[in-house]
Amino acid sequence: MNIYADNAATTKMSQAAIDAMLPYMNHIYGNPSSLHSTGQQAAGALYAAREEIAKILGCSAKEIIFTSGGSEADNQAILSAAAIGAKKNKKHIISSTIEHHAVLHTLKKLKKQGFEITLLDAHENGIVRPDELFDALREDTALVTIMYANNEIGSIQPIANIGQICREKGVLFHTDAVQAVGHLKINVAEENIDLLSLSAHKFHGPKGIGVLYARKGIPLVSLIEGGAQEKGKRAGTENIPAIMGMAAALRESVDQVEENTEKLIPLRDKLIHGLLQIPHTILNGDRQLRLPGNVNVCFEGIEGESLLLLLDAKGICASSGSACTSGSLDPSHVLLAIGRPHEIAHGSLRLSLSKENTAEEIEYIIHETRNVVEYLRNMSPIWRDLQEGKRSYVIQ
Amino acid sequence: MNIYADNAATTKMSQAAIDAMLPYMNHIYGNPSSLHSTGQQAAGALYAAREEIAKILGCSAKEIIFTSGGSEADNQAILSAAAIGAKKNKKHIISSTIEHHAVLHTLKKLKKQGFEITLLDAHENGIVRPDELFDALREDTALVTIMYANNEIGSIQPIANIGQICREKGVLFHTDAVQAVGHLKINVAEENIDLLSLSAHKFHGPKGIGVLYARKGIPLVSLIEGGAQEKGKRAGTENIPAIMGMAAALRESVDQVEENTEKLIPLRDKLIHGLLQIPHTILNGDRQLRLPGNVNVCFEGIEGESLLLLLDAKGICASSGSACTSGSLDPSHVLLAIGRPHEIAHGSLRLSLSKENTAEEIEYIIHETRNVVEYLRNMSPIWRDLQEGKRSYVIQ
Repeated sequence: MNIYADNAATTKMSQAAIDAMLPYMNHIYGNPSSLHSTGQQAAGALYAAREEIAKILGCSAKEIIFTSGGSEADNQAILSAAAIGAKKNKKHIISSTIEHHAVLHTLKKLKKQGFEITLLDAHENGIVRPDELFDALREDTALVTIMYANNEIGSIQPIANIGQICREKGVLFHTDAVQAVGHLKINVAEENIDLLSLSAHKFHGPKGIGVLYARKGIPLVSLIEGGAQEKGKRAGTENIPAIMGMAAALRESVDQVEENTEKLIPLRDKLIHGLLQIPHTILNGDRQLRLPGNVNVCFEGIEGESLLLLLDAKGICASSGSACTSGSLDPSHVLLAIGRPHEIAHGSLRLSLSKENTAEEIEYIIHETRNVVEYLRNMSPIWRDLQEGKRSYVIQ
Repeated sequence: MNIYADNAATTKMSQAAIDAMLPYMNHIYGNPSSLHSTGQQAAGALYAAREEIAKILGCSAKEIIFTSGGSEADNQAILSAAAIGAKKNKKHIISSTIEHHAVLHTLKKLKKQGFEITLLDAHENGIVRPDELFDALREDTALVTIMYANNEIGSIQPIANIGQICREKGVLFHTDAVQAVGHLKINVAEENIDLLSLSAHKFHGPKGIGVLYARKGIPLVSLIEGGAQEKGKRAGTENIPAIMGMAAALRESVDQVEENTEKLIPLRDKLIHGLLQIPHTILNGDRQLRLPGNVNVCFEGIEGESLLLLLDAKGICASSGSACTSGSLDPSHVLLAIGRPHEIAHGSLRLSLSKENTAEEIEYIIHETRNVVEYLRNMSPIWRDLQEGKRSYVIQ
């Protein structure tokens, strides 16, 4: 069996997305800035894709900037809001402890430039509290940046609530919605979102393309200077094939969001239930307020990397957390932030499902994970110590 | 007839490039940061592509950073060199008047931050002079950034010469080689290049992908913060399909560079010769030291945009200059820099050929351009004034 359960890292492109790209890779290859018909064909496609994406997100086409992906969009959103704030001498930013590194590292850069950063606690369930956000707001707060849903533990934040608070207080609100777009219903107008980042390859679109939505009137700083593309806010020849693939994938994901959710939640819950039958296993993230495809657990007494490699040998593609930091030996900052001790955080397993996964696969994953965990625990000195009472279980 | 002669704006992807991308769009879709086999397959491909590109450029794989394109690479190269310079209190940068906006606008940003910019004259033939570069070098020069070949007028700069001067003086040397890679023989080691930018879609590769070569030991600033991809210097999930397409396109272009040059130069020269038969037409750029596929002329008394639209109606895709600024009413900064007066610069036509173009097409372009120029001149009050001696020709 070959099971892909790492859809939070990246997804298989849908046939619709590939089909949407191919004509623009083959014969409609013009540069949309060119005046001739070959270029204008590309420009027409670009226009239509922008309109479609805007309509899906609940904004106008002028509010859509195409970027090379979610990380670039996060960087540009945050640096833009910081620049706006700095002009008014507002140099305080509120975020959370469980944001993606594209957000946290950008904030770190701003901290060096004199910004003050407040990171809200995400608590044990991985969810920030609007009242704590409210209390953290200051006169000099330039930006609130809270992710829509967490990439590791799948917890969904109260975005509409946060949006409302920020709008009432006149503070810019950015959300890194990389894990949410295409998986949850999102409308930037209804949720009072000022800035939103998304990445196509997280919803079965192509890699290397994303969107920064920026509400009308919010001046953006340009990370990449050059030509006048994207109204001068993002230079570089537009990646038309990828934009077409992204639009098609977004349309398809959003059209199917209810159907997929109805299919995924029972699979997810079956998987969570099955894994929690393994002794000394704990669920990370909220039981209900989580992405339809996200499962994240910690197994006491084992080491995540070994678990992944053995599962891979059984044909199961999974992750210990964010793919972006998989080369690192440090445990996940998200798991530490929600209170998991180091030794527990090291034993994490993330399984992120898509509509392609089946009930049969879920049973297989549960079965094999149980075997592998047992096997690893039998080899683990920590586990022996725990069994012999020389250590105490951290998770009861 | 349908003739694409705007290859400096963008090129048609080669079948080899498309074929190299498809498997990574279809079934090898993993995130190369993932530990499982699906991810590691992608990581293996990424490794091989990096090795291949490095070998072609004459550097080591560790010196290759994948970016979203040439503009991003230009920005990152220049900002990195500026950061290195600033630490040593070296805040002088030398460039030229005919650089791409990705370079000039980045320099403008640095100027606001206190850098002093010297722009070398490119003279009437569009080529900077090494002795003038030598004279412009100062104790506090942090960077020399000179493009390999110009995107509008095709003039090729004396890069090896400049590289040698910079290396001897211990000054970093960046070249925007977006128009040159795949079209000219380039070896960064032999030419003493420290930093080089390239873009795949200029040599029949995909859009949205490029390379920044940075010689070992040159610390790069990161424009996009986040995950640890590209050794922490460029966050964001690697665009594997595009990287594979770029590697294939580069291999093919470089393998065929001599063959293509041999084919293109006679076509280019035939086209230049034919267009110069039209009265009051002038060639822009050097007659010999120019890209094999580049033709750029000015026709007195006409307006470039009308010319392009009428040529398009005849099935000829051409450009007045850089596609990146085609929305602008200003004449090309490159043509102004080489001394063309405003009214002449407005009448420019760039035809950039590829190996796909034929001798028959060249004849057709000459014939139709002659007709269109004549037609436009007959309608032009400026031309009437010139004919009636009320104005004098600027070009004799």
